[in-house]
Amino acid sequence: MYRSNTCGELRLTNVGQTVTLAGWVQKARKMGGMTFVDLRDRYGVTQLAFNEAVDADLCAKANKLGREWVIQITGTVAERSSKNANLPTGEIEIIVSNLEVLSASDVPPFTIEDNTDGGDDIRMQYRYLDLRRPMVRKNLELRHKIAFEVRRYMDERNFLEVETPVLINSTPEGARDFIVPSRMNPGQFYALPQSPQLFKQLLMVSGFDRYFQIVKCFRDEDLRADRQPEFTQIDCEMTFVEQNDVIEMFEGLAKHLFKYVKNIEFAEAFPRMTWADAMKYYGSDKPDIRFGMKFVELKDLTEGGNFVVFDSAPYVAGICAEGCASFTRKQIDQLTDFVKRPQIGAKGLVWVRCEADGSYKSSADKFYSQEQVKSWAERCNAKAGDLILIMAGEMHKTQKQLCELRLELGNQLGLRNKDVFAPLWVIDFPLFEWDDETQRYYAMHHPFTMPNPDDVPMLDSNPGEVRAWAYDMVINGVEVGGGSIRIHNSDLQNKMFSLLGFSEESAMSQFGWLINAFKFGAPPHGGLAFGLDRLVSLFAGLDSIRDCIAFPKNNSGRDVMIDAPSTIAEEQLNELNIKIDLQEKK
Amino acid sequence: MYRSNTCGELRLTNVGQTVTLAGWVQKARKMGGMTFVDLRDRYGVTQLAFNEAVDADLCAKANKLGREWVIQITGTVAERSSKNANLPTGEIEIIVSNLEVLSASDVPPFTIEDNTDGGDDIRMQYRYLDLRRPMVRKNLELRHKIAFEVRRYMDERNFLEVETPVLINSTPEGARDFIVPSRMNPGQFYALPQSPQLFKQLLMVSGFDRYFQIVKCFRDEDLRADRQPEFTQIDCEMTFVEQNDVIEMFEGLAKHLFKYVKNIEFAEAFPRMTWADAMKYYGSDKPDIRFGMKFVELKDLTEGGNFVVFDSAPYVAGICAEGCASFTRKQIDQLTDFVKRPQIGAKGLVWVRCEADGSYKSSADKFYSQEQVKSWAERCNAKAGDLILIMAGEMHKTQKQLCELRLELGNQLGLRNKDVFAPLWVIDFPLFEWDDETQRYYAMHHPFTMPNPDDVPMLDSNPGEVRAWAYDMVINGVEVGGGSIRIHNSDLQNKMFSLLGFSEESAMSQFGWLINAFKFGAPPHGGLAFGLDRLVSLFAGLDSIRDCIAFPKNNSGRDVMIDAPSTIAEEQLNELNIKIDLQEKK
Repeated sequence: MYRSNTCGELRLTNVGQTVTLAGWVQKARKMGGMTFVDLRDRYGVTQLAFNEAVDADLCAKANKLGREWVIQITGTVAERSSKNANLPTGEIEIIVSNLEVLSASDVPPFTIEDNTDGGDDIRMQYRYLDLRRPMVRKNLELRHKIAFEVRRYMDERNFLEVETPVLINSTPEGARDFIVPSRMNPGQFYALPQSPQLFKQLLMVSGFDRYFQIVKCFRDEDLRADRQPEFTQIDCEMTFVEQNDVIEMFEGLAKHLFKYVKNIEFAEAFPRMTWADAMKYYGSDKPDIRFGMKFVELKDLTEGGNFVVFDSAPYVAGICAEGCASFTRKQIDQLTDFVKRPQIGAKGLVWVRCEADGSYKSSADKFYSQEQVKSWAERCNAKAGDLILIMAGEMHKTQKQLCELRLELGNQLGLRNKDVFAPLWVIDFPLFEWDDETQRYYAMHHPFTMPNPDDVPMLDSNPGEVRAWAYDMVINGVEVGGGSIRIHNSDLQNKMFSLLGFSEESAMSQFGWLINAFKFGAPPHGGLAFGLDRLVSLFAGLDSIRDCIAFPKNNSGRDVMIDAPSTIAEEQLNELNIKIDLQEKK
Repeated sequence: MYRSNTCGELRLTNVGQTVTLAGWVQKARKMGGMTFVDLRDRYGVTQLAFNEAVDADLCAKANKLGREWVIQITGTVAERSSKNANLPTGEIEIIVSNLEVLSASDVPPFTIEDNTDGGDDIRMQYRYLDLRRPMVRKNLELRHKIAFEVRRYMDERNFLEVETPVLINSTPEGARDFIVPSRMNPGQFYALPQSPQLFKQLLMVSGFDRYFQIVKCFRDEDLRADRQPEFTQIDCEMTFVEQNDVIEMFEGLAKHLFKYVKNIEFAEAFPRMTWADAMKYYGSDKPDIRFGMKFVELKDLTEGGNFVVFDSAPYVAGICAEGCASFTRKQIDQLTDFVKRPQIGAKGLVWVRCEADGSYKSSADKFYSQEQVKSWAERCNAKAGDLILIMAGEMHKTQKQLCELRLELGNQLGLRNKDVFAPLWVIDFPLFEWDDETQRYYAMHHPFTMPNPDDVPMLDSNPGEVRAWAYDMVINGVEVGGGSIRIHNSDLQNKMFSLLGFSEESAMSQFGWLINAFKFGAPPHGGLAFGLDRLVSLFAGLDSIRDCIAFPKNNSGRDVMIDAPSTIAEEQLNELNIKIDLQEKK
């Protein structure tokens, strides 16, 4: 071992001890006849002291050290005269008697500090240096801790971690697969799994009873801040359960993580909200309930104003921003600009100020009497000093726009504190989703999701209204996990396939092995999967999942550090029986 | 929840309780007016009793149940009149009052019992049924337990589990890579990692200090019993360590696993053997030291016999099989046939029987006097009643053949008990391996392995003699793990590359990012990786790693259950800018 102690552990109680430390030079400074070096490792920073008067040669050697050099020193722990209260080791320093340079370092291309001068691109290119910054390392320490606590909780509850294969078959349904040519089976391809969904269901058919896996999954999709081509799921499945059993088990997991990772105790059950209410009150299936500002529907109260914007809209709804009557015209204009941005695409915004004297000032004053506006304010529970913002249009579109406005206001008003966590179950998702373009229904979750038995009679007559036994866990507006109870009955499964437009052949060719397995005694089962990357970034208060991944890819799916993907040798392609065939860009 | 209890937990103390169970029908039998059903789940088997006299309809329903049907029952726990001592639940049965069929089952294609009538092929095709057999499930439970205990040990010692990427770059050195075409980067390919070697070294450069990961790795090699295209490593790396630190840390891990998984305590340190001794005494770099029978070199004692087999051989060595002088001629002939099999390729075997009267009977009696043969026996420490088996030829080849003979004898004599574990460190591996075909040296471990500093002066003059700081953990003749101290000095690394015949350009193009990273303060570091599949199969006493993998592939790399790999749609290939280009078989 090159050290007797780490750079994070020495304290006043160690004064007088001879120790050996090894680490990186964070910085060095000369003060009169003394040279001080901050030595860093994963565990902390310890100050080294070299005294020119005592050992001029040693001090000269220390003066030659550069940033990020790796050194090993031996010395005596001493109490510091000027203590540093910001550092756990700040009461001591090491009076160095021996210094060994283990590795020199070129000058790093950016400073290795939380507040670095390096931009995104250079930090990614030199990710191994970026990872030296404490804040980046802490995200990965948190990730380790979360994964470890997940396993502890699951193991204690009899869940078995079973590894499912990475080299599987491509399934045309869903997102694009990454594929892998098989050398031993010319002309054939493996695919990388988008999730272990079918395998975990097979494990339930196998009687494994309780399964989980922290597992890499792959999707060849276009990328953005919260998507990576490879991502990690906490994948779980249980047998002989109903929806409530799954929800309670994994609410328990979330509470366990909050307790052991964040030291936050949730005494109460997480609230549950139907998908219909989530859409109605928040315009989103993943509402951020850290703050209120629920949608209030006002259409009926706007009749007769001859205001064409409202009259022509099937849906009119507002949100009440408490205490915001003081917003300036400029602030309101900025909000209007915000909802008019092409990403949101609204036409505009109607506002109502609830004045201190009980009167109302509105951008639609031309069309509505004070009495009418008052009726809106009353329904919104608005009081003097509040600001009501109203949007109108087609229902789903307007709900989405109003949702964006609500979140933006939440940001502006500081209502979305990253240290506050508001978990929520969204339940009663629709089983199907209608697609206008292809004029057919798609499975909202996946084709194995169990319909709510109460709604099964509507499968033929009114499929759009059928609720699924599907549920999402949402925290602070982020969908951290989701799952469903699965169909275990072959007849019902075949019914689902036919409603989804699968022919018997296409169902068999894609899911044949699962369909066959279900013939041999399939138990009732269900589960869910958490997105580990999202969970970690939420716990860490990060804006992007990239910052909690050691070696992430950029938006073109490239790892710029290792320069992957790359071209490969002709012989390698020959061996795999493929060749490159560049297509014209469409 | 469909059950109040599992099928493994009810005991006499529960008698009188009303319970609900769910599970699979293991078997049903009618005895007079009673019908008994064995209900199975992951946790055990519980007997259900139906009495025709009490409820004829219910009993009739029970009589219709088939094997592997999934049912739910409610009933009362009762003491059994005829108890089954082989079953933990064998003292009770459930007097059933309600029976619900949750899923019927077709007749399974083989019996779901440890002693199944299903052959390999059909069990793999219906792996989800095979996994219902207790012995298969237990292997996977053991796997879960081992992985969990690995993580507990590592976490307690400050190792961070860090996920390294699966989509990386292809490196031509080493085994064949699986590759993945990149849609977003036309004409370019990712590769799946053969190990996270370079990434874990980068994490050390990043100051992560202690890393581990239980991680899938991929090699596109031809397959056999202990090889799968995807396999799992326990990958580990530490900073500021020397060889002994790594060995102690991971010997501790192995002891932890033996203790918590197998309930076996190793009080003493694992023995360490140099690679040279392992080859000299066992003809293998992974000796099975559960038994003796070390090689004894006899060349000098065979001079002057005019026995051309020995005289023409540079190497003559024997092993002493204790108490085997009683072997019949037929048994000895079978051993001769064994070593003459093409896989082993020996020309023959010389044997010496140490008779009870102190005389010797040998197949080379024509050439050697009793005195001469006695000198062999003495060197072999053979006593009356022992059998000496001698082979001769080129040293390395003969050592390998003698090794096979020794292992075969160990098998025949019952010296390789699967419940006995004999761990061993093999150290001082050669740094280089000479390849006759290409007339050059290859890195025996990998190009980043640190040479033993004592031997560095020989790097140029006598590279074949240079020892590496590399080590393997061997248990019962199986290499379960191996690793090395890595080079952290750029000059030494460049020297290695040049000795291995890399040009500066080829080294940069393959390992450029690691070489660059090492310019910014690389600490001394080293580590190792365990093969999880091998470790589990060793702990489980299995002959093949396949039996501890939930969904393994066959020798053609196929998953016969899901029929992967498979052909994919033309459009998918177009999107990926590749096409199939079947090569003529060579």
